[in-house]
Amino acid sequence: MKALVTAAGEDAGLRLDSVAEPVPLPGQALVEVAAVAVNRGELSVIGQLPPGSRLGWDVAGTVVAAAADGSGPPAGTRVLGLADRDGWAERVALDTGRLAVLPDSLEWAAAAALPVAGLTALYALRRAGTLLGRTVLVTGAAGGVGRAAVQLAAQAGARVIAWVGSPARTEGLHLLGADVIDLYGAGGTEPVDVLLDSCGGEVLTQGFQAVAPGGTVVCFGNTARAELRLPVDWGRARPGVSLHYLFLFDEITRRDVGRDLATLVRLADGQQLDPQVALVADWTDPAPAFARLQDRQVNGKLVLAL
Amino acid sequence: MKALVTAAGEDAGLRLDSVAEPVPLPGQALVEVAAVAVNRGELSVIGQLPPGSRLGWDVAGTVVAAAADGSGPPAGTRVLGLADRDGWAERVALDTGRLAVLPDSLEWAAAAALPVAGLTALYALRRAGTLLGRTVLVTGAAGGVGRAAVQLAAQAGARVIAWVGSPARTEGLHLLGADVIDLYGAGGTEPVDVLLDSCGGEVLTQGFQAVAPGGTVVCFGNTARAELRLPVDWGRARPGVSLHYLFLFDEITRRDVGRDLATLVRLADGQQLDPQVALVADWTDPAPAFARLQDRQVNGKLVLAL
Repeated sequence: MKALVTAAGEDAGLRLDSVAEPVPLPGQALVEVAAVAVNRGELSVIGQLPPGSRLGWDVAGTVVAAAADGSGPPAGTRVLGLADRDGWAERVALDTGRLAVLPDSLEWAAAAALPVAGLTALYALRRAGTLLGRTVLVTGAAGGVGRAAVQLAAQAGARVIAWVGSPARTEGLHLLGADVIDLYGAGGTEPVDVLLDSCGGEVLTQGFQAVAPGGTVVCFGNTARAELRLPVDWGRARPGVSLHYLFLFDEITRRDVGRDLATLVRLADGQQLDPQVALVADWTDPAPAFARLQDRQVNGKLVLAL
Repeated sequence: MKALVTAAGEDAGLRLDSVAEPVPLPGQALVEVAAVAVNRGELSVIGQLPPGSRLGWDVAGTVVAAAADGSGPPAGTRVLGLADRDGWAERVALDTGRLAVLPDSLEWAAAAALPVAGLTALYALRRAGTLLGRTVLVTGAAGGVGRAAVQLAAQAGARVIAWVGSPARTEGLHLLGADVIDLYGAGGTEPVDVLLDSCGGEVLTQGFQAVAPGGTVVCFGNTARAELRLPVDWGRARPGVSLHYLFLFDEITRRDVGRDLATLVRLADGQQLDPQVALVADWTDPAPAFARLQDRQVNGKLVLAL
């Protein structure tokens, strides 16, 4: 079968190549892939992996062989799921505990956009506890996780402040539930109960200034690749504050991923969570779309259709 | 009655002066004070308060009038408690929810040394969850809170690493349960599950390097008065890590302080927690003792006897 593999000389560092068919373990369903999504975390490692490496976490497709242990849905079922870095391929073996059944309402591209971005946003918000009536600041709000977080926080009853890097990145955020939209460096002084950040560096330092006593900060990235710097009064001025670092592939070891994916599907089916597919490209020519994602010109998720 | 009040020109910035008798609220017992303890947090604010200001959180004494609402112990009962910054006095009104009855085994000085240091250590460790079999690094281990934290962590089944500022400060720490004692800057690379820090600055940055994935950092001070700086990989190298700032007088608003003080008393009574009274001074001449505490020459608690 074909799969996207790393290749040093190619555009986007990827090439469509022949690879071995997946051999499902007893608890894995074999899925014929219809669409996959691309995450910034994947983009950043492509150049660091040896040639011929596989990638791909987010997949949507049809079960072609149910799991041998009887778990999970039967052949013919439409599903989305979290693959083990081998999802950018024609077929993939998915743990039945890391997939969810799709309703007809959800198209392939929308489904593929959900797992990584949706789970990251969901787990980050869960760290913060009850959100009703609280104020949530989301930095990097224009990206895939950011847009999911804005929607989930708003649906949970929070007042949502969205920070983005440029005016072009504000697109659609009000409709998703953001009450306030600001550019980095122009944010006001309204106190917030929760800060979700994947930028790190100056943006995190600036966002932290707004965190109220008892507030919760959840970081799930550090795109600035900067050290963490907080002011002298970081704690004393906000007693009870806590700062967490969430890495999805660590977090899922302690979570019921299948159940949480089903939650995301239900929210999407009920129009409470829009997967925010901003660009769909053909997987045989991914380079132009990858370049746009790299340049932060994709206001939402990039999906590759097979 | 007499009380220690701030006075600009005096040694230690304090003077014994006449003040009004306390007027207990319905839920307060009137206590004749026998001993009080001095905390670094008090030392640091003496110079900043207007002349005539009162201080004092830690008190031990005898109830002379039970609370009017019927709560708390009767007159004649020996108690320790947490006063509302007015404990350095002959008499104080204590909330019955913030005091605990003393067994005969606990002397006044030992009792007075317990509340602030013991509660801070107890609440900091509770943030970290189960300690059995885990490794706890305590910085500032020679101080009042540090010595309480070393003992409580060891009693809870943790391996305890104690960091102190000088060889003289290591005194007695092994007997309290510290498995490893190091000077700042000389600490090894053994990974730790829990870091308790009140130093801030370089010590916190250095201690953080040892924190393992999923670890918990609880800060309850910043004696370095420095910004928080953590390396670029602060989160990515230790997914699931969390950092908390605990300020006792915020924390107690969410805690059953009376019950927790009783727990500390029970542990002290059972020889599981030594209050570590390092110096007892007469409250009529506190200046020399205050100077020694300021210079970090007191390996434990400073108590003033009335």
